[in-house]
Amino acid sequence: MPFKKNNRKIEIYDTTLRDGAQNPGVSFTTEDKLRIIAELDNFGMDYIEAGNPAANPKDAEVFLKAASLNLKNAKLVAFGSTCRVNANAERDENLNILNAVKTDYTAVFGKSSLLHVEKIIKTTGDENLRIIFDSIEFLSRTKKVFFDAEHFFDGYRYNKKYALKVLETACLAGAEKIILCDTNGGNMPGYISDVTKKVVEYISLLNKNIIVGIHCHNDSGLADACSLAAVKSGAVQVQGTINGIGERCGNANLCVVIPNLQLKLNYNCVPEENLKNLTRLARYISDVSNLTFDEKMPYAGGHAFTHKAGMHIDGVFKLPESFEHIRPELTGNTRTTLISEFAGRSALLNILNKINKNNKLIITKDSEILENVLGLIKSREKDGYQFENAEGSLSLLLLKSLNRNREFFSVEKFNLLLSEPEKNSKKTGALIKIKVDGTEEITADEGDGPVNALDKALRKALTRFYPELSDMRLIDYKVRVLNSNEATAAKVRVLIESADNSRTWRTVGVNTDIIEASWNALLDSVEYKLSLNAGLF
Amino acid sequence: MPFKKNNRKIEIYDTTLRDGAQNPGVSFTTEDKLRIIAELDNFGMDYIEAGNPAANPKDAEVFLKAASLNLKNAKLVAFGSTCRVNANAERDENLNILNAVKTDYTAVFGKSSLLHVEKIIKTTGDENLRIIFDSIEFLSRTKKVFFDAEHFFDGYRYNKKYALKVLETACLAGAEKIILCDTNGGNMPGYISDVTKKVVEYISLLNKNIIVGIHCHNDSGLADACSLAAVKSGAVQVQGTINGIGERCGNANLCVVIPNLQLKLNYNCVPEENLKNLTRLARYISDVSNLTFDEKMPYAGGHAFTHKAGMHIDGVFKLPESFEHIRPELTGNTRTTLISEFAGRSALLNILNKINKNNKLIITKDSEILENVLGLIKSREKDGYQFENAEGSLSLLLLKSLNRNREFFSVEKFNLLLSEPEKNSKKTGALIKIKVDGTEEITADEGDGPVNALDKALRKALTRFYPELSDMRLIDYKVRVLNSNEATAAKVRVLIESADNSRTWRTVGVNTDIIEASWNALLDSVEYKLSLNAGLF
Repeated sequence: MPFKKNNRKIEIYDTTLRDGAQNPGVSFTTEDKLRIIAELDNFGMDYIEAGNPAANPKDAEVFLKAASLNLKNAKLVAFGSTCRVNANAERDENLNILNAVKTDYTAVFGKSSLLHVEKIIKTTGDENLRIIFDSIEFLSRTKKVFFDAEHFFDGYRYNKKYALKVLETACLAGAEKIILCDTNGGNMPGYISDVTKKVVEYISLLNKNIIVGIHCHNDSGLADACSLAAVKSGAVQVQGTINGIGERCGNANLCVVIPNLQLKLNYNCVPEENLKNLTRLARYISDVSNLTFDEKMPYAGGHAFTHKAGMHIDGVFKLPESFEHIRPELTGNTRTTLISEFAGRSALLNILNKINKNNKLIITKDSEILENVLGLIKSREKDGYQFENAEGSLSLLLLKSLNRNREFFSVEKFNLLLSEPEKNSKKTGALIKIKVDGTEEITADEGDGPVNALDKALRKALTRFYPELSDMRLIDYKVRVLNSNEATAAKVRVLIESADNSRTWRTVGVNTDIIEASWNALLDSVEYKLSLNAGLF
Repeated sequence: MPFKKNNRKIEIYDTTLRDGAQNPGVSFTTEDKLRIIAELDNFGMDYIEAGNPAANPKDAEVFLKAASLNLKNAKLVAFGSTCRVNANAERDENLNILNAVKTDYTAVFGKSSLLHVEKIIKTTGDENLRIIFDSIEFLSRTKKVFFDAEHFFDGYRYNKKYALKVLETACLAGAEKIILCDTNGGNMPGYISDVTKKVVEYISLLNKNIIVGIHCHNDSGLADACSLAAVKSGAVQVQGTINGIGERCGNANLCVVIPNLQLKLNYNCVPEENLKNLTRLARYISDVSNLTFDEKMPYAGGHAFTHKAGMHIDGVFKLPESFEHIRPELTGNTRTTLISEFAGRSALLNILNKINKNNKLIITKDSEILENVLGLIKSREKDGYQFENAEGSLSLLLLKSLNRNREFFSVEKFNLLLSEPEKNSKKTGALIKIKVDGTEEITADEGDGPVNALDKALRKALTRFYPELSDMRLIDYKVRVLNSNEATAAKVRVLIESADNSRTWRTVGVNTDIIEASWNALLDSVEYKLSLNAGLF
């Protein structure tokens, strides 16, 4: 890449566990937090803000337990507020809780906007300076203190002199790092850049050892751009969260900021080889956060290197950089080409010929079989199917269109019975009758809900004939309501991810009945595994 | 807002229907497209790129039918490629299709990177210039032509002289506007800004009437920032899509770019009052695109003005701008305060006192009842409940905690029976037995799947006692798998939206069994309506 080498190290400060936890719908348990800390440390974060122990007593436990994690890279930071108005810092309960937390690093936030001082905490500018000085001075007797200048950029616009006075006070009180916060996320990159530049100059005149950091929110959709702008203006610490989770529109997204800094602007953030774990880390945090993963996310999303337009697919096969801004493997991602009415023939031809590898049949761009398959896919897409994330079902569809599929079993019937109230906690029973090569097998099982019961009964019946199914398991089950304004009779698409000891695969089912949709995805899942084992693809 | 007034008009060019349609999972019908065109026109877009009629024959029909829409603001633009290598432009099939489309505006894209010329279309730089000149010259005999310089920013880095030569050729051939495309979305705002500035100067020396536009992709998470940077450097047209839909990581998001230009940087894009339709437009396009709406989207998302931290809720009640970067109503959005372990007491107290309005009981921040309710909510949240989008279930929970709820009915039992194969297309039957004031009612119904069958049977049984339920209907049904790596036995959260002739309300249910979760949400939905009618809140 034709960018100039610039080896300045930029510190990464992860606040997924604190500011990220403010995301609507997110709530981490202590166990979650400990696992996340280990993952973030592995990835190479410099600082991990692990909680606010004064506001949330469980967070003190996190710091205590985290001590046994033996972190390799990261320092844990406890977050909290400065002391209350007119309170003695040494006797302030919150500061004493912060002081007692098992970590050497503390971040305290204070007001840097005179508007907030006067209208929100309703005190004088002088008292606010006293609060900040006393709080930092008290904490810095035992801790390394970072000062988060809340609403700094808005405060600087409102009263520049006061905002700078706040920073000066924090520096004099012993803060080691000054973090400039765009708390409301409303500022533009140009303004962030200009102000950061002035502050960096100002602080370096006060004390050359004090570092300036940047903490942006995404309310204008520009948190990542503002973070980069601040770094270019001299900030050497960037704060953000994995996947940009956080209150309102979220925080700066470290999964975007880190690769931009490292791959595009040639700063150093995390060890080069660790960047390859970015995609996995992003998905992991999304899972633990219980949020839908944003497949469109730059660098880490499933769509980031997915090509749908036929001309793009053609181009990327000729020369990857023609339609890819980086090599996907740099962030642990992979290239995908989609099957859709846009894709044209060459992507499909590719897959067909892979399936057809042992066959004499020559399939070209003009083959009738290709035409038929395209028609088939389009008609399924109209019914709500999507094969973009279901290569298992797509492969089976293509196998059938080549008449190379095999009937491993047939389902004669199944019954489901659900009764409420029911003493047994497994409320649903499934009875299933299948036939393999003329031999019938009837069995039954029960489960947590109808789909679980059916899944268990089907594999129980089949394992007698196909023992290789015993190491197969379902690892993900997703439901998407399609035309959801028809409420409970709406069409649903069910996506199932399955795995055995060596691979994972995905299948899809669509129906107005969620049981039927799940059932079809289940059948495809088993059939795909059996077809693979039989060498059909 | 303390920004300088700058009334320069920035043209907005919407390509939701063309580049947006490349988004994985998106496929618009002709009817969808016509409705979207009408919506975009109403919103005040200057140009609407409605399709690629040479690649997609249905798009010609869109232009034909759109003629009867009588657009107020927007010009429709047909998109297509320049002629093929060594082809005569006048006889090129694609150009003739473009020429025949019922609109005065055409956008053609051509290669501006010599790398792509040589490696992808495999011809000489001169032949590419000939292609561009002849294609634009031919089209401009009958149309106003915009030239999309594909891969311009990468091409400029690769071979600056050639990239500029391409633009010069397009200008000489009669193009009215030159659009600079960051096709791979890999460039940084600073670079986009520098290059745009040079191009704007260069073009204005060639012909002062030719306008420069910007077309960014989001592969570095910076499409919106890059679009703003280009405008500051002299671009006067911004291309993008609603919600940023598009291939890979998407296009510049007009729902973010327009308010930033208009509210933050004081440019004029759309009539001021139209901006209030932004939130509605964003949700509408998301629905038609069949994509999950991004609630974290700046300006338009449901979380954009949602406050969860207790201190933020407190602040925003004192002074809205303390934690909101704009007034939500400027983009048609609204403020929400969440109930969660972060929210503290004041938000909850607000709702409790609303429910308690007819009661003598005085509830304050220190009341034991508030403590109990907070504990109850927290324990439900731990089980996977979320009340943020389920005010119906939350209200019932609070009603019960005040002992002000009424038992309208009890369910004695239900049975579900599902058999496959089944001749009848309604595969599931539900039998239900309820009791109202000592009177039993047994009834049954069948439906598309178990939830639909249960819903129908329950309301059938209850309507005998509560005729007011006859105008109630379910309008949305959403399923979310919570800890989905346990696959089909994972916990699911079901969210149901119900309506009668005067209002809508939402309820939630959580269970490992999807039937049970749906059933709880259904029960809440009916109970909420009955409680409302009985004046309980």
